[in-house]
Amino acid sequence: MMKAEQLEVGGATSKVSTRVGSNKGISAMDLVLRIVGVVGTLGSSIAMGTTEQTLPFFTRFVRFNAQYDDFPSFRLFVIVNAIVCAYFVLTIPLSIVHVMRSAARGSRILLVILDTVMLALLTAGASTATSIVYLAHNGNNSANWLPVCQQFNDFCQRASGSLIGSFGGIVVFILLILLAAIALSRQRKHSL
Amino acid sequence: MMKAEQLEVGGATSKVSTRVGSNKGISAMDLVLRIVGVVGTLGSSIAMGTTEQTLPFFTRFVRFNAQYDDFPSFRLFVIVNAIVCAYFVLTIPLSIVHVMRSAARGSRILLVILDTVMLALLTAGASTATSIVYLAHNGNNSANWLPVCQQFNDFCQRASGSLIGSFGGIVVFILLILLAAIALSRQRKHSL
Repeated sequence: MMKAEQLEVGGATSKVSTRVGSNKGISAMDLVLRIVGVVGTLGSSIAMGTTEQTLPFFTRFVRFNAQYDDFPSFRLFVIVNAIVCAYFVLTIPLSIVHVMRSAARGSRILLVILDTVMLALLTAGASTATSIVYLAHNGNNSANWLPVCQQFNDFCQRASGSLIGSFGGIVVFILLILLAAIALSRQRKHSL
Repeated sequence: MMKAEQLEVGGATSKVSTRVGSNKGISAMDLVLRIVGVVGTLGSSIAMGTTEQTLPFFTRFVRFNAQYDDFPSFRLFVIVNAIVCAYFVLTIPLSIVHVMRSAARGSRILLVILDTVMLALLTAGASTATSIVYLAHNGNNSANWLPVCQQFNDFCQRASGSLIGSFGGIVVFILLILLAAIALSRQRKHSL
């Protein structure tokens, strides 16, 4: 009865205890990656959210002032990064539980699924913002969209820079899913 | 010795044979989802790649002819969808192997990682194209980018429609990663 309960909770049997250390390492890396993700996405969100430039002169095509929320894509970028940052913070406790109890299974699967959804969300936000940054730098002749970066240079520099943290977050998610897949399969291997 | 070799190949021991059927079901769903993915991404790629409109009249802002490769994002979208479609086709044989040999482990982990990378790639392509479609429909007042869809209505309709297959592909990838995580963890559970 006691043993069955253990299996229900985390599957930690004495058979796996010899190699549990390796999954502990994976869980610790998981924790570190999540902290890196918090820093990256928080930085991106703040950097983009505070992007603003007021020009000292007037031109025919642009207004005096450029703000991040003049572009819906940049607004989306800030919101998505904030959501993903909050998600990272909320999953850190679960990650700590995984370090202590390496054989946890159900919660690992839950994390893989949520990580995958968040990866898709963050990638969507980052690439939408990237395409607008690209358009601001280069414009588009066919559609007659002019490159606004010629006027708002500082604005564009800052918006481009704020993408970095987000792409770091995407790499973090890919590594997290990789580690979780290895951890899930290892549990089986060493319990044989 | 014989048993050790079996473990090396696929981990198919007599202990798991009673519940192997459940993973067979997951593998079969994996196969079906990949075929859905091929159809979706191929459709998206072809629909966007053949998008073109020639106007019967002349306006001040736009050229007579609009093609998908006037926009770098749409070109990226076609290329990404073609890559993902080829990836789906290439992984179908591996998926068939998984249906026949449910206990395969290493190849499942490999697929999870590749699926994750392809998910990020497809999401990036689809959201970049979406942001340009949005811009073409609504324009942007701050940057003085005019909505070109008012002139090129058919072009925009077709470009918008071609996004659907790609977003279907994203859903397919999320389901595939979910199924793989469940399959990987089940192998462990039933081998205890």
